[in-house]
Amino acid sequence: MCRWLAYTGSPVLLTRVLYTPVHSLIDQSLHSRLGAETTNGDGFGVGWYDVAPAPGVFRSIEPAWNDQNLRELAGHVRSHLFFAHIRAAIGSAVQQTNCHPFRHGRWLFMHNGFIDGFAAVKRDLVLAVDESLFPQIQGTADTEVLFYLALTFGLEDNPPEAVARAIGLVEACGRSQGVEYPFQGTIATSDGESLWAFRCSSQGKSRSLFFTRDVRALRQQYPDREILSEVSDDARLVVSEPMGDLPGAWVEMPEASYGVVSKGDDQLLPFVPKRPQKSM
Amino acid sequence: MCRWLAYTGSPVLLTRVLYTPVHSLIDQSLHSRLGAETTNGDGFGVGWYDVAPAPGVFRSIEPAWNDQNLRELAGHVRSHLFFAHIRAAIGSAVQQTNCHPFRHGRWLFMHNGFIDGFAAVKRDLVLAVDESLFPQIQGTADTEVLFYLALTFGLEDNPPEAVARAIGLVEACGRSQGVEYPFQGTIATSDGESLWAFRCSSQGKSRSLFFTRDVRALRQQYPDREILSEVSDDARLVVSEPMGDLPGAWVEMPEASYGVVSKGDDQLLPFVPKRPQKSM
Amino acid sequence: MCRWLAYTGSPVLLTRVLYTPVHSLIDQSLHSRLGAETTNGDGFGVGWYDVAPAPGVFRSIEPAWNDQNLRELAGHVRSHLFFAHIRAAIGSAVQQTNCHPFRHGRWLFMHNGFIDGFAAVKRDLVLAVDESLFPQIQGTADTEVLFYLALTFGLEDNPPEAVARAIGLVEACGRSQGVEYPFQGTIATSDGESLWAFRCSSQGKSRSLFFTRDVRALRQQYPDREILSEVSDDARLVVSEPMGDLPGAWVEMPEASYGVVSKGDDQLLPFVPKRPQKSM
Amino acid sequence: MCRWLAYTGSPVLLTRVLYTPVHSLIDQSLHSRLGAETTNGDGFGVGWYDVAPAPGVFRSIEPAWNDQNLRELAGHVRSHLFFAHIRAAIGSAVQQTNCHPFRHGRWLFMHNGFIDGFAAVKRDLVLAVDESLFPQIQGTADTEVLFYLALTFGLEDNPPEAVARAIGLVEACGRSQGVEYPFQGTIATSDGESLWAFRCSSQGKSRSLFFTRDVRALRQQYPDREILSEVSDDARLVVSEPMGDLPGAWVEMPEASYGVVSKGDDQLLPFVPKRPQKSM
Repeated sequence: MCRWLAYTGSPVLLTRVLYTPVHSLIDQSLHSRLGAETTNGDGFGVGWYDVAPAPGVFRSIEPAWNDQNLRELAGHVRSHLFFAHIRAAIGSAVQQTNCHPFRHGRWLFMHNGFIDGFAAVKRDLVLAVDESLFPQIQGTADTEVLFYLALTFGLEDNPPEAVARAIGLVEACGRSQGVEYPFQGTIATSDGESLWAFRCSSQGKSRSLFFTRDVRALRQQYPDREILSEVSDDARLVVSEPMGDLPGAWVEMPEASYGVVSKGDDQLLPFVPKRPQKSM
Repeated sequence: MCRWLAYTGSPVLLTRVLYTPVHSLIDQSLHSRLGAETTNGDGFGVGWYDVAPAPGVFRSIEPAWNDQNLRELAGHVRSHLFFAHIRAAIGSAVQQTNCHPFRHGRWLFMHNGFIDGFAAVKRDLVLAVDESLFPQIQGTADTEVLFYLALTFGLEDNPPEAVARAIGLVEACGRSQGVEYPFQGTIATSDGESLWAFRCSSQGKSRSLFFTRDVRALRQQYPDREILSEVSDDARLVVSEPMGDLPGAWVEMPEASYGVVSKGDDQLLPFVPKRPQKSM
Repeated sequence: MCRWLAYTGSPVLLTRVLYTPVHSLIDQSLHSRLGAETTNGDGFGVGWYDVAPAPGVFRSIEPAWNDQNLRELAGHVRSHLFFAHIRAAIGSAVQQTNCHPFRHGRWLFMHNGFIDGFAAVKRDLVLAVDESLFPQIQGTADTEVLFYLALTFGLEDNPPEAVARAIGLVEACGRSQGVEYPFQGTIATSDGESLWAFRCSSQGKSRSLFFTRDVRALRQQYPDREILSEVSDDARLVVSEPMGDLPGAWVEMPEASYGVVSKGDDQLLPFVPKRPQKSM
Repeated sequence: MCRWLAYTGSPVLLTRVLYTPVHSLIDQSLHSRLGAETTNGDGFGVGWYDVAPAPGVFRSIEPAWNDQNLRELAGHVRSHLFFAHIRAAIGSAVQQTNCHPFRHGRWLFMHNGFIDGFAAVKRDLVLAVDESLFPQIQGTADTEVLFYLALTFGLEDNPPEAVARAIGLVEACGRSQGVEYPFQGTIATSDGESLWAFRCSSQGKSRSLFFTRDVRALRQQYPDREILSEVSDDARLVVSEPMGDLPGAWVEMPEASYGVVSKGDDQLLPFVPKRPQKSM
């Protein structure tokens, strides 16, 4: 229902990733190919890390394809790790506080998908958010609640565990309300050092997710591509939908799995939501 | 922190009330005289009743003084009962879902003031909202929560009782968190038939509130004023801050009181918040 | 590149025409079928006549599909003659002053199409606008310049003649700059009494345009359709792209023609741009 | 009618200049002291130079005081030369294309003031813009026309001469239309290397303009101020209205003068508009 992109590697100008490639994310805002919706025009957001203590976040309710300020920002901001998200809203209002990525301290979080039956479970979910975090919820999107649940369950210490518990709670609450498939989606989160990407759905038919093959291998295959010589060996893109025109550049993330991109240590592992132990 | 206006009487074009008078509400968005803030530029809203089942609501995050669409709407919409509100945000985001008036079914609700220490009591307050109403909260403003509390406590059956209980709960929650003066403000609510206006604050120093004297008396005093001959005998304006240039036209609502304007039966009565009976 | 709709007939609530039908104009903002662009998300506008001296105009740069204020307005405003336009911008900025319909006095004007090579001919075209009208141009869209040219050439007295001269000038200026097909599009204009719709392009392959068959005939064919019994015998819709689900309801406007819908006197006539007499 | 600020010196985070000082420019958007208008809430803009070929420009129609994206940008972007402008519109529409600073190639341009009787002279002025520049005018503000006139008259080669000729033309056109005082204002322009600031008005009563005293002298006076040790010896701020709380830090620019801040060579010189030689 949305599209997103996460980059980690040597610092690049955002525009090189957001605008330059064929079928770029900005093109996908108007015409995506793989999405449940072909238009992702209900706002967008960019989050980027630099030397500041917290990542910058720029969000707008205009469609990304005609936002002049995004174009300016992308042409002047460089980052070694950034997120971009284009939204196709399903339910919650089109307003900046509902645009991804969401931020808490040094953490960013974004999602393509939804909590099914959100209206029915929202109260139970927000009640499960830690009391000290509760007042920091600024919007009304399902993803923001999911983010605060993950924070409640220790995102800052163990992201895979915290996300598994958050989705597990969503599934438990949803099923208690008769929702067949409570969770759908792909998620990215980061602390500015490492990047975690999840693909998971209650139905076992998750939204698509792809990551780039090793840059060194791509350079051998496409020695003339300038962008490949610009970025570092450990550069990695994770996207909802492939962009660019380099056949063989993308690997699909398997169903029910997650990946971690960290300094010199990338891993791909199975992912299973964790049901809450007892009482709901 | 905001300014508002409520009109009830024979149908008039909104522009006659919103734009035409000297020191009109739209002027007050840029330069109010009596407000805690002189600029009320953080969005606005208009709600109006006509023959449709529910009132119309137009809200925008642009300052009212330069919103061309508001000008157009006001020049073409007639109503026998309408609300207008200009906002000076204190805390919650400037977004349409935080603009007053709020609507539920046939009811409109708006407020000038605030719940002090809202972050500390928000969780307790939203928990007290009826579970069936909870998912309908669309924004993050303190006033919207107050509205849903009033709906929970029977606003549709007995507005003064419901508002007294809602504010009473706000005061109880606030005081349990050490807030000295938890509630401040003036409130208007309506079902399209009657209009209720409240002036109340924990400190006993409430935001200002005024209503117009009897139109028949005003007509005798100002026989040349066109607007006075246009409107019906029972027309009534309630405002945060007087507008126009008719000395003697305005009566200040007393501290800790509320007024009801209903068909041929206007009343002004004392108002006291009702503390919750037992457990919080 | 855009989609538009014009209604004339007995007064109806805008929502009945804009939102209710299958494949409505609002649906077309997200997924049009016949347009050069499938998404028309670069703002929209509505213009409507009522008893006021000038038509009301509501314009926004948000996509129509998620504009809550448009939904409210459409649910509360009734009109006997109104225009609606959804925009897919090609070149000029996405801002309210570039949204159709444009207004001058009692006249509304909207367009689906473009002036090819506009940057090259803009100076010559605005120079041809009457000096007294020139300062009233508020935006930068090609269509607004076309409207002011038509006003210069007597739109208020003889719309077909004025539009023919305006397009003729566009073609002459364009060709002098080497543009092969300077004009493309369909146009609607009205004074609140009559409605004129034009289909014309330099290439002879104009954007699509349709109008409804006689309502009395449609009622016989579809006796159960509520909307058909609501509207008057002389009701007429002109649209870029058919909506609703009534086979046989729509007639395609022929290439190079225009229609007039006036009280009891509808006409369909050939349309040819008029070249300027002499020097350009 | 507006307020602006220009900084040149060692690279600083924008927030240090825009938000940190007492009575900062962002505070002035809500409550200015010296302006003709106390509220400057009709949009804003920031332009900044970095290593990119052209300066970045971020413009918005929201009031600066509550624009979250401006706050983010200012907290993450560093620049050695940047402009910021807050607008109080007088006439032209509140839209991004009318927000200052305006940009052409490497040049930025902003203005506090107005062309009096602009509607009457606009046609003559835009006709005087070079034909190749004409199509690049994107908005409808008087200042943008002034900028394009200055570009036409050689801004990129000799800014003081070009600005003098542009204002001279404005005065000649205005007076031929009976406008007593055609031009009012202060102007800043830059190519990313040097900064020019002008103070001038037909009436001889120009909007206020101030610049900072030599940083070395300020450091001696205020040894504890962190910002003063952060910036380079040649750092300079030019502002419509003093900010901060350092008595003696500001020097008023004299009436009818201009200043140039260039590498190691600051000058303050008289400024007189140049009337066009012959026919208008």
